[in-house]
Amino acid sequence: MSHKSDIEIAREAKKRPIQEIAEKLDMTFDDIIPYGHDKAKVSQDFINSVQDRKDGKLILVTAINPTPAGEGKTTTTVGLGDGLNAIGKKAAICIREASLGPNFGMKGGAAGGGYAQVVPMEDMNLHFTGDFHAITSAHNLLSAMIDNHIYWGNELAIDERRVSWRRVVDLNDRALRDVVTSLGGVANGFPRQTGFDITVASEVMAILCLSKDLADLQERLGDIIVAYTRERKAITCRDIGADGAMTVLLKDAMQPNLVQTLENNPAFVHGGPFANIAHGCNSLIATKTALKLADYVVTEAGFGADLGAEKFMNIKCRKGGLAPSVVVCVATIRAMKMNGGVAKADLGAENVDAVKAGCPNLGRHIENLKSFGVPVVVAINHFVTDTDAEVQAVKDYVEGHGSEAILCKHWANGSAGTKDLATRVAEIADADMGSFGPLYNDEMPLFEKIETVAKRIYRADEVLADKKIRDQLKAWEEAGYGDLPVCMAKTQYSFSTDPNLRGAPTGHSVPIREVRLSAGAGFVVVICGEIMTMPGLPSKPAALTIGLDEAGDVQGLF
Amino acid sequence: MSHKSDIEIAREAKKRPIQEIAEKLDMTFDDIIPYGHDKAKVSQDFINSVQDRKDGKLILVTAINPTPAGEGKTTTTVGLGDGLNAIGKKAAICIREASLGPNFGMKGGAAGGGYAQVVPMEDMNLHFTGDFHAITSAHNLLSAMIDNHIYWGNELAIDERRVSWRRVVDLNDRALRDVVTSLGGVANGFPRQTGFDITVASEVMAILCLSKDLADLQERLGDIIVAYTRERKAITCRDIGADGAMTVLLKDAMQPNLVQTLENNPAFVHGGPFANIAHGCNSLIATKTALKLADYVVTEAGFGADLGAEKFMNIKCRKGGLAPSVVVCVATIRAMKMNGGVAKADLGAENVDAVKAGCPNLGRHIENLKSFGVPVVVAINHFVTDTDAEVQAVKDYVEGHGSEAILCKHWANGSAGTKDLATRVAEIADADMGSFGPLYNDEMPLFEKIETVAKRIYRADEVLADKKIRDQLKAWEEAGYGDLPVCMAKTQYSFSTDPNLRGAPTGHSVPIREVRLSAGAGFVVVICGEIMTMPGLPSKPAALTIGLDEAGDVQGLF
Repeated sequence: MSHKSDIEIAREAKKRPIQEIAEKLDMTFDDIIPYGHDKAKVSQDFINSVQDRKDGKLILVTAINPTPAGEGKTTTTVGLGDGLNAIGKKAAICIREASLGPNFGMKGGAAGGGYAQVVPMEDMNLHFTGDFHAITSAHNLLSAMIDNHIYWGNELAIDERRVSWRRVVDLNDRALRDVVTSLGGVANGFPRQTGFDITVASEVMAILCLSKDLADLQERLGDIIVAYTRERKAITCRDIGADGAMTVLLKDAMQPNLVQTLENNPAFVHGGPFANIAHGCNSLIATKTALKLADYVVTEAGFGADLGAEKFMNIKCRKGGLAPSVVVCVATIRAMKMNGGVAKADLGAENVDAVKAGCPNLGRHIENLKSFGVPVVVAINHFVTDTDAEVQAVKDYVEGHGSEAILCKHWANGSAGTKDLATRVAEIADADMGSFGPLYNDEMPLFEKIETVAKRIYRADEVLADKKIRDQLKAWEEAGYGDLPVCMAKTQYSFSTDPNLRGAPTGHSVPIREVRLSAGAGFVVVICGEIMTMPGLPSKPAALTIGLDEAGDVQGLF
Repeated sequence: MSHKSDIEIAREAKKRPIQEIAEKLDMTFDDIIPYGHDKAKVSQDFINSVQDRKDGKLILVTAINPTPAGEGKTTTTVGLGDGLNAIGKKAAICIREASLGPNFGMKGGAAGGGYAQVVPMEDMNLHFTGDFHAITSAHNLLSAMIDNHIYWGNELAIDERRVSWRRVVDLNDRALRDVVTSLGGVANGFPRQTGFDITVASEVMAILCLSKDLADLQERLGDIIVAYTRERKAITCRDIGADGAMTVLLKDAMQPNLVQTLENNPAFVHGGPFANIAHGCNSLIATKTALKLADYVVTEAGFGADLGAEKFMNIKCRKGGLAPSVVVCVATIRAMKMNGGVAKADLGAENVDAVKAGCPNLGRHIENLKSFGVPVVVAINHFVTDTDAEVQAVKDYVEGHGSEAILCKHWANGSAGTKDLATRVAEIADADMGSFGPLYNDEMPLFEKIETVAKRIYRADEVLADKKIRDQLKAWEEAGYGDLPVCMAKTQYSFSTDPNLRGAPTGHSVPIREVRLSAGAGFVVVICGEIMTMPGLPSKPAALTIGLDEAGDVQGLF
């Protein structure tokens, strides 16, 4: 049992040169583009050259609704990947990139935890391979070209009041949420009110993560709706003429990043869209590339299964032609207890009844996941205070729901703690037991898609939406966007839209506050609560204590 | 003679793996941090390990006042570096990085030209190794922390009307020149008017380029003045507490970038501060590192010698303890003719009288450069239409000024065209003929420093400054900033402040419009004309035609 912090463990990692990690996936040094000695991108030429290969098995890691106790979804993704390698399988993991900006507010974090981490941790919390900077540049080039178009005569007749495309910055900067630009006279353009979001909220991020290749990327960028005319005609990025230049800015960023786990196994870390106004998964191109190179690919989805797995299935798999062979749902004894009504301070004491009382949250996720036609395994991410009786209670409950729960100790023991899980997951994947299908077909009307998710996944009685919202959805259907999936933005803490409603609530309703069209990414965002797309810094931001120590090591970032 | 474009020549380059270029300077693969296979950074650890080595000889390339005919200063820098290598010397060049943003307005350019270029051209015009993105992030983190400080109670009593620190973006975006931020209510802070500059105009850029090491970088970042209180007390970046976090964001960017010339010789391309409101030279750390690794280091300064070389000597050399062994002043026959009154359309015809009439511009630069105690050689950068008589006229004129002019044909022939120049430059450098000293000492009052530059370099009769400006300079002297050098911001097209006054004007005066304190970079900016720190895009920006072709190559960027 380790008493070291994640950062201490990460810094003691015996990293191997990145070309050795690439070799594990049969890539040569020429097939990768090194970024330092411990990071690389997989070259587009190499990706093109492997398109005819057979795909490996895709394994999705998701979780119960998050609680303050923590679930360890990324930790389990890493641990399962290492476990598969440890039992002799050729496996890779695919996870998301972290955003730089928020690390200067709250402390940044590891990718994973304990002895199941991806390194180099520092780089992944800072500039990494520059992907997010490229997205920021591409997004803001479009912004500048919109204002420039208006400045030079506005041939497209853009209504300056209806420019929906904002600007982005990869920082927490509340002062930029709401701004007036182009002040200062004739030479600076036409003043208008707009604002900045954080880079991960950019539609460009969602597009990069859903594009199959550079041609698809440019097509999707071109489809972005940036503004409307007075007659409500949509103006796209293609109308502005920015799609080609944006693609050039993003061509390097489109190539998946390769790093390694603490056990020197390959990890793709690429893309990081918001999990509320976007789909919250790592890039499609990373997942698809990994499937060409490894026999088993373990990936994860954001938040709990009601949001993350639902979007993984209905958005990412639909658009990418992916089909998971097995889903691992992560749960912890502590989170079960919190779902069972125990306060965080009391989580250390054995409480089998509370565990049992909390299990219905897990049970519903299992049912939901099975409804996609995929086998489900529960991973109990072990914590030191868990008792045998508590673990057994979860196992029994899960067995009663036609699934199985496996105890995992990767946080403390790395791959030695996930061999059971890895063995079982590989067996299920190899047996091809699933018959994956998304929850709804493309042809279903948009409002019915929302109802389908709300009723079948959230188990709500009804969806509440005023006429304006229903009319907007109909207008988009008439404009040709009716075949898009819906991207739900609601609280991750509950099946319902009330973050305090833990467990497995029923009888609730889902009120829709707003709908937005992400025409480039290819989904309709359905907002059911407060969505913050530009965080602020706290009164004592982490930045105040971040610095280099005398050895040149970064302090205060973690 | 080549009829290929710069980009065609660059794309045909037989690049060597970057580790081979590093080996030419006796660096191993472990001493560098690769960024792809053709770019690298020199690691900070390696830089630390070579500090006790003897320095090579420093050669500055500067030029006459720029004309629309072009001079080819970077081309000559590259050609001379290749020429030195061709005659068996261990030589490296040091030039500046290009800014990404402007390439989407006007087409980007090569570093050098013809057969004297640095590659990879595309990467250097796009994200390169991410240095400018890091500068943007560090700059804007400070901006966010200033507004955040005010938001959470404003303990430092910052006067919101006197926040001088703006934000930056590496794009041409006129809409951001003048903005009002923090609109939208209590949660977004206190509305105030501010704006964005382009990243290269950031004081962080100037600081990165003048810092000896990371400790010096953090010290200088801390010294930045970001705002004033109502009582006009200066508030620094250190007061805000951002210097440590900014240093962390800049730690990779501080490491010099290594690329190669078309002839596979080492080229350091690092840093790119404005040449008007800053000093316009590549980074001090790149130059100093190159001097530890090569026997001859060829570097360049921005604009003509009146601005660029003056700042190189009085700012960069002063702060870095550098002393150039020889200065090469680039001139072209065409530029001499334009200085002699010939219109651009008529430059193709032989006109020895016009060449002679234009020579005094060159002559004055030679005199000025000699006043720094350094030997001067003139490089005549050959153009196809130059006649022997025209070339001889320049050679005769230069000889009459106690210097020598050498014809160079590197644009067409690479190093074969600069062997004469390289041989002579190496001879002079080896002879240690110079006794370099800056133009004024630290103790001289600020206004006298301005007068010294204006009278001795620009040959002006007087400096015009109203009482407010003189009082401001005195106030800075009282506050302890009197020992800083001055950084002149005036037109590059003339010795005077009138861009149309070519040749070698006298009897003019230098009116000061404004003075600004760059307390972190460590100079007082003296503005004598219109200075634009945020360009706009033209009506048909290059971005409209930039894109990837079917082979995945970038089109329209050059």
